[in-house]
Amino acid sequence: MEDIQRGDIMADFHEELAQESLAPLWEVLKALVPREPRPVAAPAHWSFDLLRKFALQAGKLITAEQAERRVIVLENPALRGQSQITTSLYAGVQLILPGEVAPTHRHTASALRLLLEGEGGYTIVDGERVEMHPGDFIITPTWSLHDHGSDSDQPVIWLDGLDVPIVKLLNAGFAEDSGNGRQTVVHPEGDSLARYGSGLTPVNYIPKTAVSPIFWYPYARTREALERMRQRAEWDPAEGLRLTFTDPTTGGSPIQTMAAFMQLLPAGFSGSEVRSTDGAVYSVVEGSGRVTVGDITWEVKPRDIFVVPGWAWHRLAAETDLILFSFSDRPLQQKLGFWREQRG
Amino acid sequence: MEDIQRGDIMADFHEELAQESLAPLWEVLKALVPREPRPVAAPAHWSFDLLRKFALQAGKLITAEQAERRVIVLENPALRGQSQITTSLYAGVQLILPGEVAPTHRHTASALRLLLEGEGGYTIVDGERVEMHPGDFIITPTWSLHDHGSDSDQPVIWLDGLDVPIVKLLNAGFAEDSGNGRQTVVHPEGDSLARYGSGLTPVNYIPKTAVSPIFWYPYARTREALERMRQRAEWDPAEGLRLTFTDPTTGGSPIQTMAAFMQLLPAGFSGSEVRSTDGAVYSVVEGSGRVTVGDITWEVKPRDIFVVPGWAWHRLAAETDLILFSFSDRPLQQKLGFWREQRG
Amino acid sequence: MEDIQRGDIMADFHEELAQESLAPLWEVLKALVPREPRPVAAPAHWSFDLLRKFALQAGKLITAEQAERRVIVLENPALRGQSQITTSLYAGVQLILPGEVAPTHRHTASALRLLLEGEGGYTIVDGERVEMHPGDFIITPTWSLHDHGSDSDQPVIWLDGLDVPIVKLLNAGFAEDSGNGRQTVVHPEGDSLARYGSGLTPVNYIPKTAVSPIFWYPYARTREALERMRQRAEWDPAEGLRLTFTDPTTGGSPIQTMAAFMQLLPAGFSGSEVRSTDGAVYSVVEGSGRVTVGDITWEVKPRDIFVVPGWAWHRLAAETDLILFSFSDRPLQQKLGFWREQRG
Amino acid sequence: MEDIQRGDIMADFHEELAQESLAPLWEVLKALVPREPRPVAAPAHWSFDLLRKFALQAGKLITAEQAERRVIVLENPALRGQSQITTSLYAGVQLILPGEVAPTHRHTASALRLLLEGEGGYTIVDGERVEMHPGDFIITPTWSLHDHGSDSDQPVIWLDGLDVPIVKLLNAGFAEDSGNGRQTVVHPEGDSLARYGSGLTPVNYIPKTAVSPIFWYPYARTREALERMRQRAEWDPAEGLRLTFTDPTTGGSPIQTMAAFMQLLPAGFSGSEVRSTDGAVYSVVEGSGRVTVGDITWEVKPRDIFVVPGWAWHRLAAETDLILFSFSDRPLQQKLGFWREQRG
Repeated sequence: MEDIQRGDIMADFHEELAQESLAPLWEVLKALVPREPRPVAAPAHWSFDLLRKFALQAGKLITAEQAERRVIVLENPALRGQSQITTSLYAGVQLILPGEVAPTHRHTASALRLLLEGEGGYTIVDGERVEMHPGDFIITPTWSLHDHGSDSDQPVIWLDGLDVPIVKLLNAGFAEDSGNGRQTVVHPEGDSLARYGSGLTPVNYIPKTAVSPIFWYPYARTREALERMRQRAEWDPAEGLRLTFTDPTTGGSPIQTMAAFMQLLPAGFSGSEVRSTDGAVYSVVEGSGRVTVGDITWEVKPRDIFVVPGWAWHRLAAETDLILFSFSDRPLQQKLGFWREQRG
Repeated sequence: MEDIQRGDIMADFHEELAQESLAPLWEVLKALVPREPRPVAAPAHWSFDLLRKFALQAGKLITAEQAERRVIVLENPALRGQSQITTSLYAGVQLILPGEVAPTHRHTASALRLLLEGEGGYTIVDGERVEMHPGDFIITPTWSLHDHGSDSDQPVIWLDGLDVPIVKLLNAGFAEDSGNGRQTVVHPEGDSLARYGSGLTPVNYIPKTAVSPIFWYPYARTREALERMRQRAEWDPAEGLRLTFTDPTTGGSPIQTMAAFMQLLPAGFSGSEVRSTDGAVYSVVEGSGRVTVGDITWEVKPRDIFVVPGWAWHRLAAETDLILFSFSDRPLQQKLGFWREQRG
Repeated sequence: MEDIQRGDIMADFHEELAQESLAPLWEVLKALVPREPRPVAAPAHWSFDLLRKFALQAGKLITAEQAERRVIVLENPALRGQSQITTSLYAGVQLILPGEVAPTHRHTASALRLLLEGEGGYTIVDGERVEMHPGDFIITPTWSLHDHGSDSDQPVIWLDGLDVPIVKLLNAGFAEDSGNGRQTVVHPEGDSLARYGSGLTPVNYIPKTAVSPIFWYPYARTREALERMRQRAEWDPAEGLRLTFTDPTTGGSPIQTMAAFMQLLPAGFSGSEVRSTDGAVYSVVEGSGRVTVGDITWEVKPRDIFVVPGWAWHRLAAETDLILFSFSDRPLQQKLGFWREQRG
Repeated sequence: MEDIQRGDIMADFHEELAQESLAPLWEVLKALVPREPRPVAAPAHWSFDLLRKFALQAGKLITAEQAERRVIVLENPALRGQSQITTSLYAGVQLILPGEVAPTHRHTASALRLLLEGEGGYTIVDGERVEMHPGDFIITPTWSLHDHGSDSDQPVIWLDGLDVPIVKLLNAGFAEDSGNGRQTVVHPEGDSLARYGSGLTPVNYIPKTAVSPIFWYPYARTREALERMRQRAEWDPAEGLRLTFTDPTTGGSPIQTMAAFMQLLPAGFSGSEVRSTDGAVYSVVEGSGRVTVGDITWEVKPRDIFVVPGWAWHRLAAETDLILFSFSDRPLQQKLGFWREQRG
């Protein structure tokens, strides 16, 4: 009886609060401050065959004029309708057909790109053009002018990663179109890689905090470095040999919000269990293997894409030499002192 | 006719995609990458009379055992049900009654506190206790052990600000109770302020990135500093004299995700229009004035709380000498290269 | 016989080299790359009585026009004729008589100052004037405009420390006179301490690497902080409670080349042996004690000055509560990765 | 008459001071605080023919056991007897004969090396061996274990640069021999360049402030980068295209005290006048040209070495494509806020 009365009083009080845009913390505290990260996102795997089929289908349905938006968004099964692959990241698979051009634009959100299939596609960032080859890692950091296109006679397909949910949370997003199609190429191809990524830096260069002067990390160089490093034969029990793309003018991530990784697991490697607070999106660059997240196991093949949610136990195993690309929000978590990793 | 057919084909395609946890970017691109920040949050103002009334009412309805959650959450009118005052911040008004004690705990989310009313309340952070006085700024940065209580014979009321939505976005939140009530006080009151905040630092101190060794910024010192600085009579046309609380061992914000500000507008000051990408939560520490956000104007009095959404034009005017406290996510936006300000 | 011949050949060869501004490393390698720091500087102690007597005598012999250079240089007994108290530091005792004024100037060398005796002296740095009291620590960092004078009716005496030998090594020294005597005071006294040293920083402040915005560390504040900290009763076995003056906008030393320290040893404290690579110049601010360097022991009294050479074993003992000021080139050594400390 | 008397009094006073290890500033102030950097060091040029001849001669006179010290020191003509090429730097030309090995050691002083002549020489740093080719830039930063030797059948000659005078000023130098000859090679050749210098960094790498993880900058890569960059055809009027070797894990100089530069002047380039506070030691890597320092002009050929003193006006001209290596104390000057440059 008293309980009912008390219940009524509380309900009235909550109603009064609600009318003044106020709310009772005592009802929601547990949800606001969890004991540990909750499984908000789900593990998921997309085979490249499927993604490629849909991308080509979109190529027929979406006109060249709309090519810049001809992207298949990978939505986390537990976060449908929000264009998110984890709580903080966006991922999509983009198709460019022969002769197409995306108009120049820039936006607050940073984008990263892993070339999956096709030769002859190119990206232009801040006046420099690079031709993209499978396995190449390209970035268009916050507010950098960029466009892309294809001089190929075959479809070009890549994986896009963006920090859209982070920009959205901070509600600090701007965007601009340049208005006049493709930007003028003012620097020779490979200039910024030579200028900043060959062990040297121009004498008067002053690093800008948020934007790396290098936007192209060719796979040929990455692959050769991995091959050189594997000779040392020092393998992390869970991650094999894992490296993170780096801005050589700061030593930090080329993008402030997202890190990207390249990882080699030698044939036969069977990784131990590991989890970290940053959920990561992976793509297979070379080889095949087996990925286990919780009690789900996938066989993975070249160009497949899968997502391991944050704080989810997982293990990686390589059938043949396996090279994995991945990206996550780790640098942001580390900056804020949030990042944690646990070994099984 | 053709359009209808085409519409059907697209609908079928979208349905196929949906079944594979995929989605068409061409449907949502505009929403994902806006031209400029959208008015997601609304301006809002709460009078202290109202907040105090509700807090005291909660004091009767919520038991001492639940005192730690006896908080009135300020919800943005445009973001109801999400415990958010802006897209990235939480704010609440907490009441502690005489003799109450909140058990020791720690969590990933950082909290900041402005003491609004009452003497005799105290906060203990990492083994050091401080008594709080109106206008004092106290922080409990990420993962620092903290608890609080009151030896007063009167209610103690403060404003809480937390970065809960940021931790939620990254899904990286942990929490722990110490299990045994109040923590042992092992350092004398004022020790850390003396040790790190008096122009000196212990010789062997190594700054930890994410946590300031100072957690108490007494208003007496802040007030005296403002009084000294106003003699220079250099006023920013929009903001008067505005300063940000600082970790003296790094020069940065004492909390990585949030900055807090103290601001003096001399009597008669009529600020020009300004907007910035960081929405801010304000509280009046002393004096009265007028705040205009877009076409809304509020008369503000001591301890009132109001929120100016990000990228909303606003102006501040002081009737008497007006001292404003505020907090926002500016340091995070600045770290990411997102922060912008515009003058009217 | 062969040896003689060989000796002749070598001598001829050395002579040939010498004619071409070349030299044989094989003759000097040992001296160039020592096993450990050599006792280049000697320990030395000057009683304040002596320094004061000479300073006043200089006051009679050196005219007011030359007051800026009326300084008794403390020369290390092992480095005579070089105006050095250690291999990298200069120290002097300066006297200003009632009514005197030193003309405004600036130079690459940074200076620091500990006020030893007298009230009514003042320093003006970058347009702000402060009155100096005994125990106050004042800096005029590299290239900051400064001048000083005295409105007192008594002599004012201070200890000066400069990094002149460092500037000389790099041969990068410039100097300028402002031409017109005393600079205009444009900021109220205490403005910069309020603005940057009270737990706050102006919102638009951008730290400049090399120059602290605070140049005055009043002893009253330092003393109060020491008194507060001693309650914690945690004493380093060799150094008691030792702190270093800090630029609160960076957390680093207010001067890039030199650190200054304030240190409290409680009455009866008997320190263990210690040595570090940075030789330090000390002055007693309060109290008396005993200082042992190698096999030399001095009884020290207020305002005495002594130098402990780098890498020299030493120990400090306090008869009464002993407060020591000191300065050294430690931040430079630490930046370069050179600094080492060893405990006995 | 009075003057004479006053002179006597002053002399007596100075004598009294001298007896107490004190000195009058009024006698030396001008020398201590110069208006601008003085021409302490002189410009100098050594032809490689001469250096090579002397090095080979030393090869006959100095035994293999003493090979590590078989170095011709380049002494600045204005600083004879001090093993210095500028006020802060040491330079030498070292010869290693076929089969020789220098024992493993480490010291506080950092060394840098430009390979001038010969194939088959190698350096081992911290367990990794690299074979050196002409134009390669190798560093052995402070306290890194290093040794070198030659498997060649021809003499190997390099230019050594060290910061010995800086270590000497701070009197903070230590040295250690490993005791047992050559260190064990534990990492494959090229491992660190792959691991840190290919656009990636190992995920768990924590940069150490003072020591770069990369110690080998192969000329093949440098040369290719210069060739790529020259296409942009943007030439600094005084310096052509000048870059500085960089630690990609920090963006800073691989050595804290010294920077090294590589510079391309296209055939026919005639540089404008320039001077900076850092005196630099140059060596011609490729091509020929003309160097003017003040009123001295040298024709320079491959492997010649010359020194441009700090603050000395100079100009560079290229007959053929000219590639210059240089090193100076610039990073130290910049850290301290001392560095200045002036264009003519």
